[in-house]
Amino acid sequence: MLIVQKFGGSSVANAERVRNVAAIVADAYRAGNDVVVVVSAQGDTTDDLIAKAAEINPNASKRELDMLMTAGEQMSASLLAMAIKSMGLPSISLLGWQVGVKTDSNYGNARIKSIDTERLTAELSRRNIVILAGFQGVNKYEDITTLGRGGSDTTAVAIAAVLKADLCQIYTDVDGVYTADPRIVKGAQKLSEITYDEMLELATLGAQVLHNRSVEMAKKYHVDLEVCSSLERKPGTKVREVVTMEKLLVRGVARDDNVARVTIIGVADVPGMAYKIFSVLAAAKVNVDIILQSIGRDGSKDIVFTVKADQKEETVAALKRVSILENAIDVQVDDDVTKLSIVGAGMETHPGVASKMFEALFDANINIQMIATSEIKISVLIRKQDSDRAVQAVHDTFFAK
Amino acid sequence: MLIVQKFGGSSVANAERVRNVAAIVADAYRAGNDVVVVVSAQGDTTDDLIAKAAEINPNASKRELDMLMTAGEQMSASLLAMAIKSMGLPSISLLGWQVGVKTDSNYGNARIKSIDTERLTAELSRRNIVILAGFQGVNKYEDITTLGRGGSDTTAVAIAAVLKADLCQIYTDVDGVYTADPRIVKGAQKLSEITYDEMLELATLGAQVLHNRSVEMAKKYHVDLEVCSSLERKPGTKVREVVTMEKLLVRGVARDDNVARVTIIGVADVPGMAYKIFSVLAAAKVNVDIILQSIGRDGSKDIVFTVKADQKEETVAALKRVSILENAIDVQVDDDVTKLSIVGAGMETHPGVASKMFEALFDANINIQMIATSEIKISVLIRKQDSDRAVQAVHDTFFAK
Repeated sequence: MLIVQKFGGSSVANAERVRNVAAIVADAYRAGNDVVVVVSAQGDTTDDLIAKAAEINPNASKRELDMLMTAGEQMSASLLAMAIKSMGLPSISLLGWQVGVKTDSNYGNARIKSIDTERLTAELSRRNIVILAGFQGVNKYEDITTLGRGGSDTTAVAIAAVLKADLCQIYTDVDGVYTADPRIVKGAQKLSEITYDEMLELATLGAQVLHNRSVEMAKKYHVDLEVCSSLERKPGTKVREVVTMEKLLVRGVARDDNVARVTIIGVADVPGMAYKIFSVLAAAKVNVDIILQSIGRDGSKDIVFTVKADQKEETVAALKRVSILENAIDVQVDDDVTKLSIVGAGMETHPGVASKMFEALFDANINIQMIATSEIKISVLIRKQDSDRAVQAVHDTFFAK
Repeated sequence: MLIVQKFGGSSVANAERVRNVAAIVADAYRAGNDVVVVVSAQGDTTDDLIAKAAEINPNASKRELDMLMTAGEQMSASLLAMAIKSMGLPSISLLGWQVGVKTDSNYGNARIKSIDTERLTAELSRRNIVILAGFQGVNKYEDITTLGRGGSDTTAVAIAAVLKADLCQIYTDVDGVYTADPRIVKGAQKLSEITYDEMLELATLGAQVLHNRSVEMAKKYHVDLEVCSSLERKPGTKVREVVTMEKLLVRGVARDDNVARVTIIGVADVPGMAYKIFSVLAAAKVNVDIILQSIGRDGSKDIVFTVKADQKEETVAALKRVSILENAIDVQVDDDVTKLSIVGAGMETHPGVASKMFEALFDANINIQMIATSEIKISVLIRKQDSDRAVQAVHDTFFAK
């Protein structure tokens, strides 16, 4: 088998952790597999480098920040290669440019355009364990780029895709994907399998195990993922196209506290009204999530939508530039809200799922402010103070044993 | 003018120092020059990285150590580019592989084979201040190499050579080359000029301002060097082919405490005797410096030579393998010695220089154990306890005002 393994920054934070990772890699190699390992920078390295840059130039260019930060993965990759070699196994560290991870020139958030396989396959054919610096690539000018948040996950999935790896293991400090955040929700259960789409919804909804970009890429290129823990040796959660083992209607409960609700009451119902509002928000790079529109009094309309709470200021500023809102009766922004969602590929054919969720919330005496649904997801907006109780109540309804 | 400036690790050790270097670079650029800057890793970065590697694998391969350590220059190069940009000047950081610093595959101590000028000249033609990570190159396998001790100096001189720069400034924490170590010798004077050959002799003899490899390369490619301080803005010492300004017979006094004297008394005078001794030492990679041979009693010979004191053990072990020494009367190794040298291109045509040096030592009641001369150098071996007084006495003789 050809396995790609990815280890995040906390997994390689110090010499002891690096040796622990080396032992995991060595086991996979000794079992007869070809192994490519993708690593992030050690622990707080990236944050430390950003702080160094900020001290020298608070407005440093993204090009130079990428040059600075990629040194972090370079260091962790070479250290891990050393650790594996000290166990008597052949290993070589390589950087993004050395294996031809070609990206566009969007410094700080580049997209992978292609990956050369020549060097990688040559090293694997020499039975080397390849340690690849994650998060980094090179653009057409031969300048170094980074892939943005979750970049090392993206590197791992992309490498697995071009090498047609049998499995891409994402090692983190959690041991898999749960039906809800196990630190908060009693009875949260680890899933042995989940589909790409369910994983995408969970990630979007606040489950921080995998970044969406890497899941989307895995889905597109049919890369079998496994989320597992670098601290405990036990099976993790498999992420794949079709899940056969479990027949759960609902795969998980997620919450997102970074939400603000914008309410516009009594806006004139003129043609292109929605377009006028949301194009201004798009230009201000405000991400709008749920949108509800209803007919208000006197033929005017009410519009309610959600944005990220940390974009509240940009939202308010942008709305002031929307001329048709000048005569609106009221514009309110409220970030004392939480979005609670349930996700499951099975629910689209089972209409009773939504009512079961609403019933659980009603029994817990929790008021629902907004509802939005998709094929595999139901989201509700509730007051922030109710969110812990709400997650537990909904989880108990679907996952109580 | 096209100027190459090199700044060592202490010159960029922290944000304040980086800003200080940026100001020096900015002055050169604003004066209308094209500027390429070569930087070392910040302060103790390289030592810290070596310690990290040692913790994980005390026998780490040189290839992986090079991968690890070059991250240091990458970080300092990007930080300096950020500092220069914050002053409103255009700047770009580049790595060894990005400007095609091609080396052999001798990891840890690679030699530069060629440098592409395309990227460098393109950036200069855009009026960018180029910040190049020193010490690093790339071999034919596209693996990263380092240039060994003094590697950033070598990078700077090599870049100056291929770009045919008008001047290569080496900024350090001293402000130039002195007639003797100013921390030890009273009255030591800064030289405004010195020839390559004199600089080479001084470096060999213990003056640690410039590494010999970079001076040799500067001589070969006719690169005008200037050694100057990054802390004080004043003229440094120019190193070039011919010195016109000063007519000093002696350019400097140097001492080397890393010396051991080996005395072999009464070795049989057979053909190839010297060859047999010194070929064994060469095979053991022992560097032999001064060699004296004289006729001893009974037709046997006495041989005295010096080696580096830190190679004493290898020397003794190697001599045990020389069969013709089995019947020698005595073999002694003594590292309680110092080599004291005077250097000056003018002395070859002035035989009085040597006697003036010996007179100074005689007046100070210092015994001379060995003497060796070349066209531009006279070295004597003395007891270590006499060395401070000896350096001062000789310096006073030649440089007293």
